[in-house]
Amino acid sequence: MTRPARLAVTAGEPAGIGPDLCLTLADRERETELVVVADADLMRERARVLELDVRIEPWEPDQPIPTAAGVLPVWSVASVATTRAGQLDPENAGYVLRTLEAAVEACQLNIVDGMVTAPVHKGVINEAGIRFSGHTEFLQEKTGASGVVMMLATEGLRVALATTHLPLRDVPDAITSSRLSRVLHILNDDLRKHFGIAQPRILVAGLNPHAGEGGHLGREEMDVIEPLLERLNSEGMNLIGPLPADTLFTPYNLEEADAVLAMYHDQGLPVLKHKGFGRAVNISLGLPIIRTSVDHGTALDLAATGQADAESLHEAIQTAAHMVRQRERARQERA
Amino acid sequence: MTRPARLAVTAGEPAGIGPDLCLTLADRERETELVVVADADLMRERARVLELDVRIEPWEPDQPIPTAAGVLPVWSVASVATTRAGQLDPENAGYVLRTLEAAVEACQLNIVDGMVTAPVHKGVINEAGIRFSGHTEFLQEKTGASGVVMMLATEGLRVALATTHLPLRDVPDAITSSRLSRVLHILNDDLRKHFGIAQPRILVAGLNPHAGEGGHLGREEMDVIEPLLERLNSEGMNLIGPLPADTLFTPYNLEEADAVLAMYHDQGLPVLKHKGFGRAVNISLGLPIIRTSVDHGTALDLAATGQADAESLHEAIQTAAHMVRQRERARQERA
Repeated sequence: MTRPARLAVTAGEPAGIGPDLCLTLADRERETELVVVADADLMRERARVLELDVRIEPWEPDQPIPTAAGVLPVWSVASVATTRAGQLDPENAGYVLRTLEAAVEACQLNIVDGMVTAPVHKGVINEAGIRFSGHTEFLQEKTGASGVVMMLATEGLRVALATTHLPLRDVPDAITSSRLSRVLHILNDDLRKHFGIAQPRILVAGLNPHAGEGGHLGREEMDVIEPLLERLNSEGMNLIGPLPADTLFTPYNLEEADAVLAMYHDQGLPVLKHKGFGRAVNISLGLPIIRTSVDHGTALDLAATGQADAESLHEAIQTAAHMVRQRERARQERA
Repeated sequence: MTRPARLAVTAGEPAGIGPDLCLTLADRERETELVVVADADLMRERARVLELDVRIEPWEPDQPIPTAAGVLPVWSVASVATTRAGQLDPENAGYVLRTLEAAVEACQLNIVDGMVTAPVHKGVINEAGIRFSGHTEFLQEKTGASGVVMMLATEGLRVALATTHLPLRDVPDAITSSRLSRVLHILNDDLRKHFGIAQPRILVAGLNPHAGEGGHLGREEMDVIEPLLERLNSEGMNLIGPLPADTLFTPYNLEEADAVLAMYHDQGLPVLKHKGFGRAVNISLGLPIIRTSVDHGTALDLAATGQADAESLHEAIQTAAHMVRQRERARQERA
């Protein structure tokens, strides 16, 4: 790709820190072309409150994207209610979703190369009477993707999840051969396509403590996970496991791994967030578009205070730009 | 306490690295008085194979314990079969348990102040027809303790477990108010008594991802954990939670915590072992005696090779000695 990567950044929940974080993007000249998807007036108001010298520049598709320090191009989507920092308003739920829709469509029409999302607030969207269980599911529906996998990444560690937001009680029955096969195919394919890893080496955790200890602590490893890993390895993947989660995450084992597949949320994310909190990035795999996100919530109490830490957003942007370049390289190699 | 702490160190499975690790104790002069519980001939033979210049000195209760470099006092328990490094032999299962029994009795009779255990091999003990599910359960039975809690510690982090070696499927039903109450009482009491923490601040994880997110991802937090924590706090404990496990373990949250209570094995131990592998210590709380242990297994393939890393054993000894001093201090304050 001869031109710089071009990314849409959705500002998320207007009462939260999303707008604040997006304003920091104007701090310096950018290599990557960034356009924030948000209400331009809201962005101007937040800049005023934060006493930031940022010029909000309205942007429309087909216009060049300015990258100079002090200028923030905003693709404006009008909000309905006046936003008060820290105060959720269901009136603006539709606005939040329209920013996401605009970014998805811009990806699909190749107006941008990918999208990066600041946090939304699930609760207030549901309160507005709109069924919404998260960015990932929303993007899956909008893009018609057959499956999507949540992966979090920080320096030296990528953790994908076989199951995400399920009560712990429902996890064991959700660990089926077909689910694991789908997840591992998506993970393996996307690590090749978007991360430039020719033959990803993936450490797969067991479901039970000590990976079941030969059936003494649960049989899912023997009945489901082991046979599947054997089959996928014979088809060409490089999967190691099932491994006991507590030894899997030791630095020695992680050194040689391109990614870890954890069976459930609290098996995989504590180490990831311990190692990289504030600098971790959430990546949606399996979508036909590139999408990364911050790893934190709306932090309503920090909105408009100038205390919000933009490091995760900056990391999410760098990761998305890296994925864009790798995808482009793979396309050129195929051509 | 005017005299040094005195600890019994069981050498564990003779075919594993336990004897090798114990031999390293003679490397230097000790502040703590250490006596290894093992077959003296086996120890001599292992020293010979490893070409270590260690004098194995038979020891009996009431004798002084030498602490000079190059001398290793061994309270000898005879093994039955000749040991070959790396080769398990069920004939020696009874011997391994007798070393544990000797150490427990020495603690109970105040011949030593505490015990430290090198790893045993559960499988071969069971193969010998002896029911044995681990050191912790064995020590509970021998001491008649009503409850015991497994805690792992490394620098800056202590993690206790509400459930230990259960299939994941059985965990949710095991998280009862009575179990949590028992575990938290033991944890709180032992942190005071053996670690000198006047008012332990304990972070308690939820069972479900996001600690149930207000019931959307499971109800155990609302139904069981929250009411119990409220009650125990009103009785004087300092419990914070239930917290989402992935944010609980961020360095910022751990900074102010004396310990973490995880609901299950793979929620708590991955971070602990990521942070402290090779230097983590396993501590049995709730016993009437002090007992610490290494955090690793028998590593049969490393036995008699000189490659075994003794750091965890040294840490376990330091931790036990520290606990002995704190217990003594608490006794003096009460007197």
